[in-house]
Amino acid sequence: MSARSQRNDIESPDGELAVLLPGLGAVGTTVIAGVLAIREGLAEPIGSLTQMGRLEALSSRDRGPLIREALPLADLDDIVFGGWDIFSDNCYEAAERADVLEDAQLEAIREPLEAIEPMEAVFDPSYVRNLEGDHIKDPDTKMEAADMLTADIHRFLERHDADRAVSIWCGSTECHRSFQSIHHDLEALEAGLRDNHDAISPTMIYAYAHIRAGVPFINGAPNHSTNCPALIDLAEREGVPLAGRDLKTGQTLLKTILAPGLAARKIGLEGWYSTNILGNRDGAVLDDPGSFESKEESKLSVLDSILEPERHEELYDDADHQVHIHYYPPRGDNKEAWDNLDLTGWMGYPMQLKIDFLCRDSILAAPLVLDLALLGDLARRAGESGLQEWLSFYFKSPDVPDGQPPVHDLFAQHDLLVDQMNRFQEVS
Amino acid sequence: MSARSQRNDIESPDGELAVLLPGLGAVGTTVIAGVLAIREGLAEPIGSLTQMGRLEALSSRDRGPLIREALPLADLDDIVFGGWDIFSDNCYEAAERADVLEDAQLEAIREPLEAIEPMEAVFDPSYVRNLEGDHIKDPDTKMEAADMLTADIHRFLERHDADRAVSIWCGSTECHRSFQSIHHDLEALEAGLRDNHDAISPTMIYAYAHIRAGVPFINGAPNHSTNCPALIDLAEREGVPLAGRDLKTGQTLLKTILAPGLAARKIGLEGWYSTNILGNRDGAVLDDPGSFESKEESKLSVLDSILEPERHEELYDDADHQVHIHYYPPRGDNKEAWDNLDLTGWMGYPMQLKIDFLCRDSILAAPLVLDLALLGDLARRAGESGLQEWLSFYFKSPDVPDGQPPVHDLFAQHDLLVDQMNRFQEVS
Amino acid sequence: MSARSQRNDIESPDGELAVLLPGLGAVGTTVIAGVLAIREGLAEPIGSLTQMGRLEALSSRDRGPLIREALPLADLDDIVFGGWDIFSDNCYEAAERADVLEDAQLEAIREPLEAIEPMEAVFDPSYVRNLEGDHIKDPDTKMEAADMLTADIHRFLERHDADRAVSIWCGSTECHRSFQSIHHDLEALEAGLRDNHDAISPTMIYAYAHIRAGVPFINGAPNHSTNCPALIDLAEREGVPLAGRDLKTGQTLLKTILAPGLAARKIGLEGWYSTNILGNRDGAVLDDPGSFESKEESKLSVLDSILEPERHEELYDDADHQVHIHYYPPRGDNKEAWDNLDLTGWMGYPMQLKIDFLCRDSILAAPLVLDLALLGDLARRAGESGLQEWLSFYFKSPDVPDGQPPVHDLFAQHDLLVDQMNRFQEVS
Amino acid sequence: MSARSQRNDIESPDGELAVLLPGLGAVGTTVIAGVLAIREGLAEPIGSLTQMGRLEALSSRDRGPLIREALPLADLDDIVFGGWDIFSDNCYEAAERADVLEDAQLEAIREPLEAIEPMEAVFDPSYVRNLEGDHIKDPDTKMEAADMLTADIHRFLERHDADRAVSIWCGSTECHRSFQSIHHDLEALEAGLRDNHDAISPTMIYAYAHIRAGVPFINGAPNHSTNCPALIDLAEREGVPLAGRDLKTGQTLLKTILAPGLAARKIGLEGWYSTNILGNRDGAVLDDPGSFESKEESKLSVLDSILEPERHEELYDDADHQVHIHYYPPRGDNKEAWDNLDLTGWMGYPMQLKIDFLCRDSILAAPLVLDLALLGDLARRAGESGLQEWLSFYFKSPDVPDGQPPVHDLFAQHDLLVDQMNRFQEVS
Repeated sequence: MSARSQRNDIESPDGELAVLLPGLGAVGTTVIAGVLAIREGLAEPIGSLTQMGRLEALSSRDRGPLIREALPLADLDDIVFGGWDIFSDNCYEAAERADVLEDAQLEAIREPLEAIEPMEAVFDPSYVRNLEGDHIKDPDTKMEAADMLTADIHRFLERHDADRAVSIWCGSTECHRSFQSIHHDLEALEAGLRDNHDAISPTMIYAYAHIRAGVPFINGAPNHSTNCPALIDLAEREGVPLAGRDLKTGQTLLKTILAPGLAARKIGLEGWYSTNILGNRDGAVLDDPGSFESKEESKLSVLDSILEPERHEELYDDADHQVHIHYYPPRGDNKEAWDNLDLTGWMGYPMQLKIDFLCRDSILAAPLVLDLALLGDLARRAGESGLQEWLSFYFKSPDVPDGQPPVHDLFAQHDLLVDQMNRFQEVS
Repeated sequence: MSARSQRNDIESPDGELAVLLPGLGAVGTTVIAGVLAIREGLAEPIGSLTQMGRLEALSSRDRGPLIREALPLADLDDIVFGGWDIFSDNCYEAAERADVLEDAQLEAIREPLEAIEPMEAVFDPSYVRNLEGDHIKDPDTKMEAADMLTADIHRFLERHDADRAVSIWCGSTECHRSFQSIHHDLEALEAGLRDNHDAISPTMIYAYAHIRAGVPFINGAPNHSTNCPALIDLAEREGVPLAGRDLKTGQTLLKTILAPGLAARKIGLEGWYSTNILGNRDGAVLDDPGSFESKEESKLSVLDSILEPERHEELYDDADHQVHIHYYPPRGDNKEAWDNLDLTGWMGYPMQLKIDFLCRDSILAAPLVLDLALLGDLARRAGESGLQEWLSFYFKSPDVPDGQPPVHDLFAQHDLLVDQMNRFQEVS
Repeated sequence: MSARSQRNDIESPDGELAVLLPGLGAVGTTVIAGVLAIREGLAEPIGSLTQMGRLEALSSRDRGPLIREALPLADLDDIVFGGWDIFSDNCYEAAERADVLEDAQLEAIREPLEAIEPMEAVFDPSYVRNLEGDHIKDPDTKMEAADMLTADIHRFLERHDADRAVSIWCGSTECHRSFQSIHHDLEALEAGLRDNHDAISPTMIYAYAHIRAGVPFINGAPNHSTNCPALIDLAEREGVPLAGRDLKTGQTLLKTILAPGLAARKIGLEGWYSTNILGNRDGAVLDDPGSFESKEESKLSVLDSILEPERHEELYDDADHQVHIHYYPPRGDNKEAWDNLDLTGWMGYPMQLKIDFLCRDSILAAPLVLDLALLGDLARRAGESGLQEWLSFYFKSPDVPDGQPPVHDLFAQHDLLVDQMNRFQEVS
Repeated sequence: MSARSQRNDIESPDGELAVLLPGLGAVGTTVIAGVLAIREGLAEPIGSLTQMGRLEALSSRDRGPLIREALPLADLDDIVFGGWDIFSDNCYEAAERADVLEDAQLEAIREPLEAIEPMEAVFDPSYVRNLEGDHIKDPDTKMEAADMLTADIHRFLERHDADRAVSIWCGSTECHRSFQSIHHDLEALEAGLRDNHDAISPTMIYAYAHIRAGVPFINGAPNHSTNCPALIDLAEREGVPLAGRDLKTGQTLLKTILAPGLAARKIGLEGWYSTNILGNRDGAVLDDPGSFESKEESKLSVLDSILEPERHEELYDDADHQVHIHYYPPRGDNKEAWDNLDLTGWMGYPMQLKIDFLCRDSILAAPLVLDLALLGDLARRAGESGLQEWLSFYFKSPDVPDGQPPVHDLFAQHDLLVDQMNRFQEVS
């Protein structure tokens, strides 16, 4: 990995880019299968802003340049995928089991999918209680686990003749644990890694190993890691971009679209009840109250940030916001989110809004993973390091520097993202 | 009415402001009853940005000033309401019949409501076929009708000792008719008024009369009038602000909130089916295909403007967009809008979104009428004239100067509105 | 109370009938207010089969007799209401607090409502953990509690010059406890009442006291009592009708309507997910997992009985049935039940059915309470005793004699009810 | 075809049974493909009462016999399919185009599907305006058309060595026309056939040809034919069973399940708004107001029959019942039916019920076609002739002998069906 420093231009994206996914389950295999199919012209990268989106047109006569042509992003053909998983299935087998994509579609790219085999995962059953894997490293200490991951990364880059890597956590939601003092100090964290401190989760170990190896680390789950002050310190020191947490896909995506609209119109809110049913492995994991607590924290925070009840007491102060998730196997990966909003209008008259989103977990997540891989890599080549706030657009619970309030409004997030893209375009 | 010229400051809102409503039905009486109740401290102006909204805070420690305090808007206590209707019911009777507000609430403000009696309306049954009124002027020509309206306005101002007026069309949806040559030339239009040209609708007569009297005219229905080139000419010449068309309330409001979110995320759209059931007089009028055509044109245009299929063929080019309205008496004024969206995600996988909005027509419209009255009056005092594009936020089908595309995205509209408010704040 | 024996005719309903409700909350006060309003001609007894229903017409030319005219039921004018509650509010105050009925409607019958004051309740906080009352008897033993209730009943009859009484439990859902040996033997139960055995719930004490006093006891909640073998023995011995449990109102009512239709058509079921939001006191009580367990047991049992998976493995064997209840204050008594059914059709193709029932808890329950009071009293006058299986129509979890499967199919229940009504008509 | 007379036993089902379908589109090919797949053990006949249902168990220890074993029905292996269509696609091509079944499923039975080629259809564009075919007979008169069909039938039986046939109309919905005098008299009808009377629709010609050939004719569409008095006369004279009209599949099926439940509970109805979106050829045909009128008549009639407003004025007299169908291509054959019910409960309080049925037109229809083929054939072998009222269970608009009211309540229909099955079981 080449040494870099803060710079005014952007390194070229030439050469292979390793996209490493801790977690090669439903989301991970859907990303990989999709990119393989897109390369073959068998599918479209719908939902990916970097692939389908355009920057603003300069005149009304043209349509504006495609983002993937305007910015020096890695080409899809230059991506080589790898990852870790607690099951030893190759990506074809894992995709079959995940049952997200149609058999015929998987068949068409079976060979390259089969060629992608997971590296052994770092796993801790006290953080994910409803899964049991058999493809797991057996280190003596958490620091040894991190060393093994670093070695995996270097071996992968060598084997695939790749110059650069970027990593996006696509694994399970871990149980919620509050930060302790060791999370606030890098030395303490490293001591904890050596001492097997039980407040250090697998996600933190992955993050530590990647940052140390100079690889941007992005957190697709609500797990604490990219928000850990000690790790942010390390990333800034090492010149590594970080971003997280929890990909904004179904219900929360809609919430951060709708709530700004209600707020703009000063329509009042008395309650917002949200329930989700899903039947994939993610649903099984979230059936554990510990994991659900992590998710719930991530899902509940968005409304206050958008509605600002402290500025509009009469409209939003007493809103009852609930989020429930139920594991319901008949639905598989095709989750359903049902929302009821109790609204108030002129003179306090009540109205109701009900939303039923028949969505697909991995289908919504996959293009975000692709965008984050490409933008995370771009950020590193542009000399960015530490938390990348402009990527908030992609997250339920955007990690931001200490003391700052996160932006949840999708449109405000979109503005942040596009502004940064414009800056990149200027210097590239 | 005092003479005015383009100016750098804003006239003070001191004195009485006449708010004149052509159409004192469900929407009109809900506005009036609401303002009366709010004055008495019996209700909150929920849904009104001018009353409940704040401008941006300058520091994180304060909440930002309330718009009604930051801008020189007329005070609610200084408003005097009047209007025209094809039925002779006073506002208490009309509100009872409209059955929007609870009896107890109307009882508390019965006296001032009863005091507001409609002036005789200008009406033409060929434009509204499903209503039959008995409180209608009987002029020989359309110009004579306009003269009668102008006389009404002056008499009203005098009787209520008011200095200024603003008018918002709250009447029925008229049958759709295409513009002809007389609509493009003021002289031709005035000749047509004298000759009873059948392409001149009642709304145009009202608009003409108000503009000529120096009164800002705002069009809450899809009826052609504020988009009529000859009338825009007249307004610019007379220094009168205009704005229209069709208050953006239920389903279309949601559409212009959701569609920008889908576009931001590059989620594809295959179809958007919208149906509405409502049982008030508005529903009965729209049961006439002629009136529905006006409404449909207004409702259908929004998606293309937001999704820009010409820039994103793969995502939006073939979307089937349908809007239906059915008159369904059991629901009264409490309409229901049901939407189904057929979406596509990563690799083309289909998803569905269903929205059921149990809303209230007049409750959603009333705060918009209040805002438009106050902002229309402000615009005049600030020396603005002609089409007020920054008020697009309030309309399904914003009228904009010739050749410009209207902005439908609620958030882009909100930016336009707030920018103009900030400009007003600077000069006030 | 007159002595009675098994007989071939039915005692006349002449004289006053005391309808005693343990629990004068939302449901209880809605029943009482409704009957008072109906007597005054101010409302219709919609939802009451005894008041609005007809028996089969004998020829196509007539409409069939009204049930209330064809059977010797007590007249609404002859009912005198009483009851017990843990709060001392009179019925007007309690109805106001329950916020089910409109103020104007309560005002019209305020005087007779205020006259109904609750007797002090028997209460045990270990059975209902989320409520705290202050209008509670303070006996030394549970037997003494029963004696106090019996005295209450006799005093009430005397004071109101009533001949007969019938009692319907309208109180809260108690925590679930399994039956023990003392529930299977009357002597053991009576010893337990004297010894304050903690497996004897308040509902059982009420049931015991009523049965011993010769008063039919009907159980509107899922609480164990009318299904307690020792109490059934006592009721048979004393010639007292019993019926229970848990009034079939919203979601379960729909379930027992829809499921028979699916079964008739051999449409397969893979999952049935049900969630409920409600914000009344009942919702607060069910927020306690102990109380919810009682409710859940009652709600889950219905599908198996109707779909008979043991007879149709391919269609119904693996159906995932879930029921959730969430306390959501914005909704008050107006609960909402949302259901999603995952169905299979021809060749296994999946289909989905979603149901959103915007219902009202007490409005649905009240007519059932009235019917059960009238039919329970009729049963006693007709010489019936013990469990009244023909009343299954009204219950989520019908109590039936040991070893019998309960009938859940609403249409089969309706047949049972009408058959018994026809028998009563023959002998009356 | 063997001669038969009214008899006390049932002819054996030995030998081949020709199942002839006028219309080999989405529904027809789904029936055929399904039966072929079921024979191969590749699919289950879900939704088919004859294949999956059981008669009542005699004791609680057994499960009751399967209907297909208890009654002398033709075996699925003995069915040979044929039919007519206005397009010349073979059944594999037509099934591909209909896009109901998955490609992999069609591939597995491709050969036998390809072997089924449609005979040329009788067609009249004035009855179906939105379709244009090219595989159409060209007779001089309607009688000649009937003769050609009769010849087709005999040729088909001979070629496939079949003894018996049964025919189910699976073609398009024709434009609505009222009956005239020629429909009431067989001689007049036959004269009309010879004179090309324009009130004789293609469906009537098919019915006439089949009845004359001794083949039971069943009408799966709302088209007038099996309710034509002259044709019923002919069927009775020829000893041929008839049944119709309009297969009861999605929304109307649910309506006839729910409405009996509301009626049983005396819940009031103020309005029932139904809308449908579908995108298959059936949707395109129903986009023609003429065809929609036929469908609407069939769909609207069910509620009155079940709710009996003449017996329950206060509950059902003013209910506003609306049915809409919109052609919406994104949905293909997977139609969606959305219903809103405005209900009233105790004291007139309003409640709402919303139903969203994401169903599949042909998947719901196919098992009904199979059942009707088998039961129609059974009826003929049992000596039944004329209208088979006991098959009402399968129809939106059951044809019944003159002067009788049709039964719409699904549960009452189910009782009729099962009673007849029990009678057949007794004599077989």
